[in-house]
Amino acid sequence: MYAVTGYEVKIPSDSDFRSYFMQIAMLQDQIMPMEELEPVYLDRGIFFGDGVYEVVRSYDGKIFALEEHLQRFANSLAAINIKGVDIERIRSRVSRAFETAGISNAKIYFHITRGSEPRNHIGRAELRPNFFLTVTEQDDSSEEKAKGIAVSTHPDWRWKRCDIKSLNLLANVLARRDAAGKGCGEAIFVDDAGLITEGAASALFAIFERSDVAENHKTAPAGQILRIAPLTANILPSITREYVIKAGRNVGLEVVEKSLMPEEASRADELFIASTTKDIVGVVRFDDKLVGDGKVGKYTKQLAEEFHSFTV
Amino acid sequence: MYAVTGYEVKIPSDSDFRSYFMQIAMLQDQIMPMEELEPVYLDRGIFFGDGVYEVVRSYDGKIFALEEHLQRFANSLAAINIKGVDIERIRSRVSRAFETAGISNAKIYFHITRGSEPRNHIGRAELRPNFFLTVTEQDDSSEEKAKGIAVSTHPDWRWKRCDIKSLNLLANVLARRDAAGKGCGEAIFVDDAGLITEGAASALFAIFERSDVAENHKTAPAGQILRIAPLTANILPSITREYVIKAGRNVGLEVVEKSLMPEEASRADELFIASTTKDIVGVVRFDDKLVGDGKVGKYTKQLAEEFHSFTV
Repeated sequence: MYAVTGYEVKIPSDSDFRSYFMQIAMLQDQIMPMEELEPVYLDRGIFFGDGVYEVVRSYDGKIFALEEHLQRFANSLAAINIKGVDIERIRSRVSRAFETAGISNAKIYFHITRGSEPRNHIGRAELRPNFFLTVTEQDDSSEEKAKGIAVSTHPDWRWKRCDIKSLNLLANVLARRDAAGKGCGEAIFVDDAGLITEGAASALFAIFERSDVAENHKTAPAGQILRIAPLTANILPSITREYVIKAGRNVGLEVVEKSLMPEEASRADELFIASTTKDIVGVVRFDDKLVGDGKVGKYTKQLAEEFHSFTV
Repeated sequence: MYAVTGYEVKIPSDSDFRSYFMQIAMLQDQIMPMEELEPVYLDRGIFFGDGVYEVVRSYDGKIFALEEHLQRFANSLAAINIKGVDIERIRSRVSRAFETAGISNAKIYFHITRGSEPRNHIGRAELRPNFFLTVTEQDDSSEEKAKGIAVSTHPDWRWKRCDIKSLNLLANVLARRDAAGKGCGEAIFVDDAGLITEGAASALFAIFERSDVAENHKTAPAGQILRIAPLTANILPSITREYVIKAGRNVGLEVVEKSLMPEEASRADELFIASTTKDIVGVVRFDDKLVGDGKVGKYTKQLAEEFHSFTV
């Protein structure tokens, strides 16, 4: 079930690495022998972002789409060649932690890194991966959902393998900080070709009247189109995205997988972002332009309702 | 002296963040309350790679080019908007650690992250940055330097701000692991335009006879050209690179800053990589092609000697 493809590499063994002598470490102003350092300080996650993560959430005591998230986690691990992780064990850890916390609307974050060792790019073959998980309360984002949020565009500075859910997220952080400084709740990445890829922590969807859109839709019958960027190596295969597409079809929208330019997005009838933690949140301002009438749109609300029918 | 430019953003204050309740954490199979977790587990360095680093080394008890590394560190901090770091204090920490270790040929690694807190993209304004440093022994890479190394090309998957020396290094790790699997000592990044940017942990230099190179050099007098990619947002402003260029001019090479294609690199008279820890190491195989006669070239050796005159 979790069979995945990944590349195979011959990695040097312990004996290929010279031993380290006379090493010291320093934390803030405190000097200590390297041997006294907790392994977490030598986590490859911090040196290189050499790890992958997932976020799942629960609705009313039930974790949503855990299987899909575990499959994507397995894919991410394989893509960066971290081996020896038993996904069944991850599943049981997630369940155990979720039950222990007893939070009915919970956000569960977990990551695995290649392990802890003195800094070197390649990593010893014998390393034991580090697992880390938190369970926290997930608020219902009710105010954001009622009023909608503003978003701002930012150049897509991310690496070229955003299909891998890795810990290399500095571009996302910088974009979100830039957006926050502009009073925006999300940053929307625009690539070198001038196309929107996705949000810093979400997918961006648009709703258009068929008559508003490009000529290949002009002959289609009246109705609405749900537009979303197609999946590429530059886009995370969002699990929420798949459920939103399903919801869109259920409510009679035509789904068109085609990238948007910012100018197109700003004149959509409705815009919304979708993510695991917040599911569907309307976007009412796109950079300096109001979207539609500046209120959360009716299809956005209808899709949110339909989406919630999946989570019960 | 350390005045730098960076963007200014208005960041939410503590009070804008909701408090966290009933949280639990899990390390491998061990569950605990979040409050019991050491702050290092919540380092934004591990969640996002939200930090920057430097590596300096010493030769015979003297740290080389510390000023330039501290200036670049200040630039990196400003570029990702980490504030409140006193570079004079960093300098004194580096010196103190180096003296304490008493290693005459040392590698000094240090990083600063935005701080530790429950995972959120933006980061509280009040966070205290985390400083981490190690001093380890740097071997002289004498075998690599005598025999030269093989290198292999890899698509440049890195983010678009490689001018910032950040902790987002997964693309570098994956490329180095791929290279190691092929018996190569370094990976050379090739961008979407088919041009070499740099090595995963080094700069790549080529030496050509003037008659070998493009037409704009055909009329130049006989002699050798030292070729290196120009600095862009996709390339780290390598400090070693500047010293190699200086060494090149000192030994009478014409320095040409122009990107190489892999095909050009493979038919260079000489190739070498340059990095802080290993300074100059000859490249004798480029993918499946021998470089020159398959031995470390004479200009490479001459440049290494000239370079070492700077380090004493």
